[in-house]
Amino acid sequence: MASETKADWDVPDPLPLNVQGIPQQVLTREEVEITSLDAPQITEAIQTRRFSCETVVRAFLRRAALAQELVNCVTGLLPEYAIERARYLDSLPQPLGPLHGIPVSVKEQFGFEGRVTTNSFVAWRDRPQGPPCSLNRRLEDAGAVIIARTTQPQTAMHLETNSNLYGRTLNPWNRNLTSGGSSGGEGALIVLGGSALGIGGDIGGSIRCPAANCGVYGFKPTPFRIGNTGTMGTISGQEGIIGCLGPLSPSLAGIELFMKAYLGQSPWMEENTLVPVPWREISLPSNLKIAVMWSDGVVNPHPPITRALKSVVSALRDAGVTVVDWKPEGHEEAWEITSALYFEDGGQRVREILALGDEPALPLTEWLLTETNIRARSVQEVWELKTKRNAYRAMYNNLWLSTGKDDGHVVDAILCPVGPGCAPPHDQAKYWGYTSHWNLLEYPAIAFPVARVDAELDQADSTYSPMNEKDSFNHSLYPGPEMYKDAPVSLQLVTRRFEDEKCLAVTRLIEQAMKN
Amino acid sequence: MASETKADWDVPDPLPLNVQGIPQQVLTREEVEITSLDAPQITEAIQTRRFSCETVVRAFLRRAALAQELVNCVTGLLPEYAIERARYLDSLPQPLGPLHGIPVSVKEQFGFEGRVTTNSFVAWRDRPQGPPCSLNRRLEDAGAVIIARTTQPQTAMHLETNSNLYGRTLNPWNRNLTSGGSSGGEGALIVLGGSALGIGGDIGGSIRCPAANCGVYGFKPTPFRIGNTGTMGTISGQEGIIGCLGPLSPSLAGIELFMKAYLGQSPWMEENTLVPVPWREISLPSNLKIAVMWSDGVVNPHPPITRALKSVVSALRDAGVTVVDWKPEGHEEAWEITSALYFEDGGQRVREILALGDEPALPLTEWLLTETNIRARSVQEVWELKTKRNAYRAMYNNLWLSTGKDDGHVVDAILCPVGPGCAPPHDQAKYWGYTSHWNLLEYPAIAFPVARVDAELDQADSTYSPMNEKDSFNHSLYPGPEMYKDAPVSLQLVTRRFEDEKCLAVTRLIEQAMKN
Repeated sequence: MASETKADWDVPDPLPLNVQGIPQQVLTREEVEITSLDAPQITEAIQTRRFSCETVVRAFLRRAALAQELVNCVTGLLPEYAIERARYLDSLPQPLGPLHGIPVSVKEQFGFEGRVTTNSFVAWRDRPQGPPCSLNRRLEDAGAVIIARTTQPQTAMHLETNSNLYGRTLNPWNRNLTSGGSSGGEGALIVLGGSALGIGGDIGGSIRCPAANCGVYGFKPTPFRIGNTGTMGTISGQEGIIGCLGPLSPSLAGIELFMKAYLGQSPWMEENTLVPVPWREISLPSNLKIAVMWSDGVVNPHPPITRALKSVVSALRDAGVTVVDWKPEGHEEAWEITSALYFEDGGQRVREILALGDEPALPLTEWLLTETNIRARSVQEVWELKTKRNAYRAMYNNLWLSTGKDDGHVVDAILCPVGPGCAPPHDQAKYWGYTSHWNLLEYPAIAFPVARVDAELDQADSTYSPMNEKDSFNHSLYPGPEMYKDAPVSLQLVTRRFEDEKCLAVTRLIEQAMKN
Repeated sequence: MASETKADWDVPDPLPLNVQGIPQQVLTREEVEITSLDAPQITEAIQTRRFSCETVVRAFLRRAALAQELVNCVTGLLPEYAIERARYLDSLPQPLGPLHGIPVSVKEQFGFEGRVTTNSFVAWRDRPQGPPCSLNRRLEDAGAVIIARTTQPQTAMHLETNSNLYGRTLNPWNRNLTSGGSSGGEGALIVLGGSALGIGGDIGGSIRCPAANCGVYGFKPTPFRIGNTGTMGTISGQEGIIGCLGPLSPSLAGIELFMKAYLGQSPWMEENTLVPVPWREISLPSNLKIAVMWSDGVVNPHPPITRALKSVVSALRDAGVTVVDWKPEGHEEAWEITSALYFEDGGQRVREILALGDEPALPLTEWLLTETNIRARSVQEVWELKTKRNAYRAMYNNLWLSTGKDDGHVVDAILCPVGPGCAPPHDQAKYWGYTSHWNLLEYPAIAFPVARVDAELDQADSTYSPMNEKDSFNHSLYPGPEMYKDAPVSLQLVTRRFEDEKCLAVTRLIEQAMKN
């Protein structure tokens, strides 16, 4: 490890379950001050010359190194690279762009020049990346400094982060719990303050789940708004569900800043798979109407999630917002379609790569590949699956439109859980439905923190009678709030396809309502 | 046939090769006057009460019935339906929408309530359509009147129009030549004045080819701007190349009117596969730069096409437009990718449907299904194909961007042939490359008429030495201008993905330049 990030600190041994307070204890006051700023605050601090880019980058590099020691969230720090870049930025007479000087982390899965990109497969441990992820240059053109690459699980297809190559990433609030995944390194690193902005990928919840589990913001945009050239999906050319890159941030303002900075570069010129829709200024309707999905009808969420939903609904009603119940339809079928489309070959390609690396499938890999509807299909069977997917999308759009049949005003957004509970204990994240549903539909969705688990308010419901096997399993994961001590409680906001701007605007309104 | 469209005329027996002038001879003066108007002129004539909707619709119905007798372009007229609709429109105090009273024809392939939709398969001759094509209601909501459904070939995958179910559609300018396809009924009906606006579908040239062959305008938009719910593709769920619906019209103004009327309805609300990009007002750059593709490097076009290119280039230069040569790359590979993606199963599904109807594959069906790269593939092989497709798209976008490397101004459009010649004699349309290339790339493209074959100017080049087998076949189709007597000569204009507005604007500029 380079000198810039050498550990000169003493951390408690053994580490406590909750390591979230440790950076404040072991870093300098200035380091803590700097790394407590969010992205817009950093650009301001640099522009007002309170700090140089180099000072900022060095502080975040130190905190990222500490984060790695605490929860194993980084696959590689980039100290020389980042400091050189920071010095270059400091040498400029004007800010390079809207992200000037912001330390950024990116998932290892995204190609980085001169580094391997493994997707956490042992077989790919030495595989050099071809072209770097297009987003890297966009970030740097906007002035950001990439300081770290972060962990993802084996296959990058768990809602946790564990691999034979990089080990397990822990939840900084409670190391018995998962950080979430697949962008679990990002979630953990950001909530620990080791990065001011992170870029993850999400094909079934992989941005939103770790953001929720760690208590930061994570936004999955509509597909084809952010380019993914140079990211290493496991299966190139399989396009039934489109993976989306998107930001994680300690603040909503950071998410907005990134989206504007990125789309302000008209990325569709160079990646013309993208849709040429710039970031649009929008005004929310004065008579906002939000639907709440208390449950998806398959797995009911744990008490902390329901409590969070109630608190937001109450705040929204106090703010004069119309709140109605969302009546979900077909979410079980949605998962059958979605999971099958993840592995049109029944998982054969993944098993081949595992065999090539002589590594065992981890429990969550094995679990996913044996989900009921996943099997090797012929092209004709894939056509059938895509026809079902298209019908499901049309059905759900009609369901949304039907919310306007009485008053002519369709709901502006759906408020719902991000998952059926807070961050679960390790190897238990087996329900994707609350996030993957919106990947299937290509709707933008954001995870945002609302509360923390409360020992008194979040008692288990001992009289609960599960609806089905999945619900029963999920119920068994909540013996009571003790297991989830200190865990963040997050929620999800979803808008219609291409209503990314509205998704963030409604979330901002919710935050304002919650403050009042 | 209903009385409204009963043939009370005498047409020459035998019919001449060129039947284009017959409607003027046998219809009434008022009928000819009405049916010579294009879409914007019709709305104006109705709004100024020069004609009622009913009078307009009756005139077009008569001319469509005559067109059917001359070239076999209609699968069904809708006299009762259309006249009732026209009367309803006449009863309104205000125009219903921007297409108020315009008689429109639609391809049989697009579902129509209460009618069969066969795709010209015998097996499907009695198969009722499920939901009607979403476009029908859009057209009607804008005030249009659907008066006819038009022919397509067996499989809807020929660049001609011939089927065991409906027979062959002929070219009105020269009945020895094809009308083109697969929207060949539209091309023929519109140039004969039997419809003021037509809707076709295009996955490899099926709007642009018949428009070019018949001498009208045909526009293939970027995918996901016009919805195709309720159209009957042969293979649902196969999505390697996206078929596009789009307009055919006797005038460019009609194309523009349709696009504005359609997108003005925000169709993406109900069909949320669509991209929510409205029709945008644009200004062309003052220093317009157009690239000319004289040949795609695989098959050189016949003399009339090259002459048309030269005449447009000359007019553009006179108008102060910068014209450069386009250097095509990889068009042969593009066809191998595209044709394989049309039939991921090697054509098995099509052969099954043919067998089910106990009908033989027509020569052009057989020809297409045995193209070199078409074969039954596994899902893994389809992934490879799509990976190649994506790489090709990226390569071509870079090629386009490279045209700006010296002056910072990438070319605004590519001017090129629509096909390697004018409408060929029947059963000879075996080169799709000039149109299918832009389907692969998802670029918007329009076919527009430029000239007619000239016995003196379009002499064959007897010294020509073909580049390859395909080029040799195409060369053999041009013994001289005599075979193509009276055939329209059309060209194609192509812009970048989602630059649909620019595509039409540049075409308008070309037309103005040609007039001067």
